[in-house]
Amino acid sequence: MSQEKQYIGIDLGGTKILSGIIDSKGNILEQDYRKTEAHKGPDVVVSNIIDSVNSLLSNDTHSISSVGVGAPGFATPDGFVIDPPNLDDWESVPLRQILKTELGKKVAVENDGNAATLGVCRFGAGRGKRNVVYLTASTGIGGGFFLDGQLYHGAVGGAGEVGHMTVLPRGPHCGCGNRGCLEAVASGTAIAREGREYMLHNPNGLLYALSEGDPDRVSAKLVAEASRLGDRDAEEIIREAMSYLGIGVANLVNLLNPELVVIGGSLIKMGDLLFESVKSTVKRCTFSRLSRSLQIVPSQLGDTAGLLGAASVAMAYEESLT
Amino acid sequence: MSQEKQYIGIDLGGTKILSGIIDSKGNILEQDYRKTEAHKGPDVVVSNIIDSVNSLLSNDTHSISSVGVGAPGFATPDGFVIDPPNLDDWESVPLRQILKTELGKKVAVENDGNAATLGVCRFGAGRGKRNVVYLTASTGIGGGFFLDGQLYHGAVGGAGEVGHMTVLPRGPHCGCGNRGCLEAVASGTAIAREGREYMLHNPNGLLYALSEGDPDRVSAKLVAEASRLGDRDAEEIIREAMSYLGIGVANLVNLLNPELVVIGGSLIKMGDLLFESVKSTVKRCTFSRLSRSLQIVPSQLGDTAGLLGAASVAMAYEESLT
Repeated sequence: MSQEKQYIGIDLGGTKILSGIIDSKGNILEQDYRKTEAHKGPDVVVSNIIDSVNSLLSNDTHSISSVGVGAPGFATPDGFVIDPPNLDDWESVPLRQILKTELGKKVAVENDGNAATLGVCRFGAGRGKRNVVYLTASTGIGGGFFLDGQLYHGAVGGAGEVGHMTVLPRGPHCGCGNRGCLEAVASGTAIAREGREYMLHNPNGLLYALSEGDPDRVSAKLVAEASRLGDRDAEEIIREAMSYLGIGVANLVNLLNPELVVIGGSLIKMGDLLFESVKSTVKRCTFSRLSRSLQIVPSQLGDTAGLLGAASVAMAYEESLT
Repeated sequence: MSQEKQYIGIDLGGTKILSGIIDSKGNILEQDYRKTEAHKGPDVVVSNIIDSVNSLLSNDTHSISSVGVGAPGFATPDGFVIDPPNLDDWESVPLRQILKTELGKKVAVENDGNAATLGVCRFGAGRGKRNVVYLTASTGIGGGFFLDGQLYHGAVGGAGEVGHMTVLPRGPHCGCGNRGCLEAVASGTAIAREGREYMLHNPNGLLYALSEGDPDRVSAKLVAEASRLGDRDAEEIIREAMSYLGIGVANLVNLLNPELVVIGGSLIKMGDLLFESVKSTVKRCTFSRLSRSLQIVPSQLGDTAGLLGAASVAMAYEESLT
C-alpha cells in the first residue's frame, strides 16, 4: 500500500468551519463541519477550529503532512489573520502560530479568496494554466489572482479585492464604506436589495406574492425565481447586476490579460443568465486580442472549493513551511 | 578606462522616434530625434527607426551591448508589434527580427507602457521596489505592472490596459469602441472634450475668451489655465477628471496592492490638482491596510521616461536574448 501524502484543510467562514483530510489528488477522505460561533469572539472560534481538526485526527495522524487554512480578512505572510469582516472582535490573531503549537503540525494560512484560487489552479478548471483570475460571487464578491504560475499576494498580502473595485461611481453604498463597489451592485446582497426595493413599491408584482410582502424573504434566489417565472422587473434587476459583474470581469481582463477566468460562488447557479451576460460584456469591453485568447468558465469545485483551497494552501507552501 | 556597457533605446511614438545610447547607470550619451511619419506606413516607419539608430552609431559601435524598443500597441514575446493605435496600416510587424537583422545587434521589444514601467523600476521612483503600478496620463492613459519583482505581461502580452478599465458605465465614448473607459473620462483628451463642450455653451466664459471661441484651441492645458485663473466650471471639469483618475488608481490598489504607484505623462504638470485628488480618492476607496502601506508619486523621469524605458528593455532582457 502506497503512503499517499495527506493534508488537512480548514475552511474558516463566518457561519461555519469546514475541515477535512485531503490527499494530494484532491480526494476528501474525512470531513468535519461545525459552527464558527463568530459572535463569541476569537478564542472560541480558534478553539472550535482545533476541536474540528482533533475530531478528524481521532485515528492515526502520522500520515498528515501539513495543515492549510483559508480565512476571511487579510492573511499576512507570517500567518496573522487580520480584520475579517464576518468574525466579531477579531482584530489580529496569529492563527498560524496558534495552530502550529496546538496541532503539532506545519501550518500555512491564506486569505479565503487566495486559498480558493490555489484550489482552482490545482484541482479545478485552472489546472496547468499560468494566468488565472478567480472570482467568487455569493453574498459578497471575492477572488484571487494566479499570475505567471503563482499566487499573487501584493505588497502586504492584500491583493485580489475584486469585490471592492469601483464600477459605478456614486452608486449604492457598500459594506466597506465606499460606494459603487462591484460587490454593491453585482452580488447576491445587491440583487436582494434591489429586489426588496422593487417588491415594496409593487404590491401587485410577482415578487410581492412570492415573498408575501416580507422584505426579509426577498433573496437573490427569490429574485431569480421571479425572473424565471416571467417577471420583467426581476429580470431587469438580474440583468443589471450581471452586466456590472461583466464590467468587473472585463476590467480584470484588460488589466491582467488572463487565459482563464473561473467564476464560483452561489450566483453561478444562475447559469447562462450569468455567463452569457458576463461573456458578452467582456467581449464588448476588452480588446479582441485579449478576449480571443480567454476562457470564462464556472468553477467545478462547488461546495468543496473552500476545503480543497485550504488543503491546496498546505500543499503549495509545504516546502517553505517550518 | 572602464568598459561601461552601453545600450540603445528606441522610443517609438505616433509622431516621433526618439533613440539614444544609454549606459547601465541610465546616463543618456547620445540622442537622435526624428519624425515617425506614421501616415506613410510601416516600411517607412521601420526605415526611419533604422536611420535613427545608424545616425547614433556613426562612431564606434563595439561597446553597444543590445537594443531595446518601446512600441505602441501589443508586443508579443517574439517581438512582433501588433495593432498600434497611432501607426497607420500597421497590423503585425516582426520588429525585433527586422531590427536584429538590420542592426546586427540583439534586440528586445516591449509595449511602451511596459517599457516605461521597467524604466521607472530601474532608474526612477520604483528602484528597489517589488510591486509597482505605473500609470501614464497624457492624451491617452496607459501603464504597466511590476509584480513580485518582474514585469507582468499576462497570457498574450496584453496586460496593463489601464486606460480601458471601465470606470463609468454608459459614460463617454472611448477611442477603443467601449464607453466610460478611464481614458474617456480622465485623460487630456477627455478634459479637452469637456472644456470644448463647456466653452461652446458659455460665450461669456473665460475659456471662450482664452480660446477665442475656437474649439480646436481648447486643450487640457487651456482648461487647466482657466481653472488656475479662477474659472469655476473649468475647475469642476479638472476636478471631475481627476476624481475618475483617482478611482482608476484606487481600483488598481484594491486589485494589486502595490507598495508604489508612479504617475507620469503630461497631466502630472497639474501637480497637487492631480495628486491630492488621486490620493484622497484612493484613501476613500481602498482598504486602509492597503493605502497605509502605499506611496503615490510623480515619475521623475520626465521626457526621458520613454527612452530610459526602452533602454531598460534591453538591459532587462539581455540575458535571454539571442
